[in-house]
Amino acid sequence: MTTIRALGVDIGGTNTVLGLIDGTGTLLRQESFPTNPADGAHRFVARLADTMHHLLRQETPPSTVDAIGIACPAVNTKEGIVDNPANLGWGRVDLAGLLRQHFAVPIALLNDGDAAALGELHFGVAKGLSNMVMITLGTGMGGGIVVDGDLVRGTNGTGGEIGHVIIGAAGGRRCACGRLGCAETYVSATGICRTAAELLGQEIMPSPLRDVAFSSLTAARIASFARDGDRLAQRVFDVTGNHLGRLLANLAAVFDPQAIVLYGGLVHAGELLLAPTLKAFNESVLERYAESVKILVSTLNDGRAPILGAGSIALRQVSV
Amino acid sequence: MTTIRALGVDIGGTNTVLGLIDGTGTLLRQESFPTNPADGAHRFVARLADTMHHLLRQETPPSTVDAIGIACPAVNTKEGIVDNPANLGWGRVDLAGLLRQHFAVPIALLNDGDAAALGELHFGVAKGLSNMVMITLGTGMGGGIVVDGDLVRGTNGTGGEIGHVIIGAAGGRRCACGRLGCAETYVSATGICRTAAELLGQEIMPSPLRDVAFSSLTAARIASFARDGDRLAQRVFDVTGNHLGRLLANLAAVFDPQAIVLYGGLVHAGELLLAPTLKAFNESVLERYAESVKILVSTLNDGRAPILGAGSIALRQVSV
Repeated sequence: MTTIRALGVDIGGTNTVLGLIDGTGTLLRQESFPTNPADGAHRFVARLADTMHHLLRQETPPSTVDAIGIACPAVNTKEGIVDNPANLGWGRVDLAGLLRQHFAVPIALLNDGDAAALGELHFGVAKGLSNMVMITLGTGMGGGIVVDGDLVRGTNGTGGEIGHVIIGAAGGRRCACGRLGCAETYVSATGICRTAAELLGQEIMPSPLRDVAFSSLTAARIASFARDGDRLAQRVFDVTGNHLGRLLANLAAVFDPQAIVLYGGLVHAGELLLAPTLKAFNESVLERYAESVKILVSTLNDGRAPILGAGSIALRQVSV
Repeated sequence: MTTIRALGVDIGGTNTVLGLIDGTGTLLRQESFPTNPADGAHRFVARLADTMHHLLRQETPPSTVDAIGIACPAVNTKEGIVDNPANLGWGRVDLAGLLRQHFAVPIALLNDGDAAALGELHFGVAKGLSNMVMITLGTGMGGGIVVDGDLVRGTNGTGGEIGHVIIGAAGGRRCACGRLGCAETYVSATGICRTAAELLGQEIMPSPLRDVAFSSLTAARIASFARDGDRLAQRVFDVTGNHLGRLLANLAAVFDPQAIVLYGGLVHAGELLLAPTLKAFNESVLERYAESVKILVSTLNDGRAPILGAGSIALRQVSV
């Protein structure tokens, strides 16, 4: 007996993760490879297709695929293209069109934040909710917003760009999008390294961070120093959580959601990030939302949320 | 031949405006009175009922009313109450329940920003749009957000509180809601007076504003000085428009709307406010939204938008 199967793909600034899922939303097999955005979109798609074929061949017997769902930053769903993703530098690319040269199945393209939100809504911690905001904290920051059960896609299908909300005073950090002060320049895996660098300049306290070159900094490394008791590294998370908590309070005022779900690599820092985030959220949120809006951590925080979201959207296209 | 009629009411921090509308959305008669929030909600409702009766008696023959729609800040539509409106200081009030002691007709209660958005969507400059953000710039700042044709009400019906988005650096202006840095403390009729006071302290240039007590300042007066060439007053509008333009750019990133509509008393300042707002918007908006998101000025900017919105919602309840 054959069942319907889809590949869900999540293209991140650092790694691309893909998974084979069946009609029940079960993830059968997962694989990942470095995105290497500097190679360009054409070579990326060739590597993606190779990895897909490889993954399908691992199944016994080798699996077929009925549909593909791709989650990517900066997707314009109206035109069906990827439109100047800040962290990939690909310009405008017809990603689905390029992949169609390798796979003759329906291909759905959606924003990575939207895909993660759908995954969480159907299979994760937001199951059963109708109003939620998803924040993805990876190399960059993305978002997916669900109002009355539906995604807020906007006029061009590019809504929910929470990472490009400008925060703080005028003249903030330079963003890859060309502007100053975008939230993702502060609250993301790259943002937290930038905060570390700034604090190294600002403070005089000793820290093992002083022996690490900027290009060797990672969020995981800063978290490790913080857990070992380094005050400067702890301070980096306090500053980051403060920015994030304020942003979440503003999203609560605009959307009055049941929950805000945090997802992505940065969330693995756990209480280091969550404690200052909740502190700032509680200090900044309008009183009436303090109890009604829950801040939740994704339960699909191993790369599954956007894969399941993208895969399930793709399956829906072939099931109808 | 009798036609169905509704009273639409817009409760503002300074004035309350009410209008009689018919089933086609035509405004037959309008009246207003000072809100005087310090009197408390009970005395306010008594005065509102008196004014309603007075307005209905002016018609020949005296009109009846089939439904009432009330637009008010901080409405919790889930509980059907007004919940701690910052500019009114009424606490939690069952406004519809109080008014029902005077009028035995269906009474709809909705957020003032939502009412204005619906008015604009059905009868104004946003007619035919399905994705729009309404910004109301009165004594305070409110908002109404329409996604795919429906209002974003949120879990408790209190979504769209754009005026309580915290802007700028930490430690901003004290807001009536108890927090620091809410957008309405900068961009509203009261916010612009606060900006004038701050600039009087910050700058040394002469200005007729130096001869006006803070309590006598109004947005209209500052606009009048600016039009007469006062550089300090012009600067006040530049600072205000800069805050507003940045906020609109962030809303564009989150909602990807077809248009953002500006409404309310402050908009009567015209180019004084619009020119710096558009400048900051264009400087701050993500490139991909720069052409697709239109900044529009309400065509119902004489108090009609929330009255028509509230009245039409009320009529819908009795028409179904």
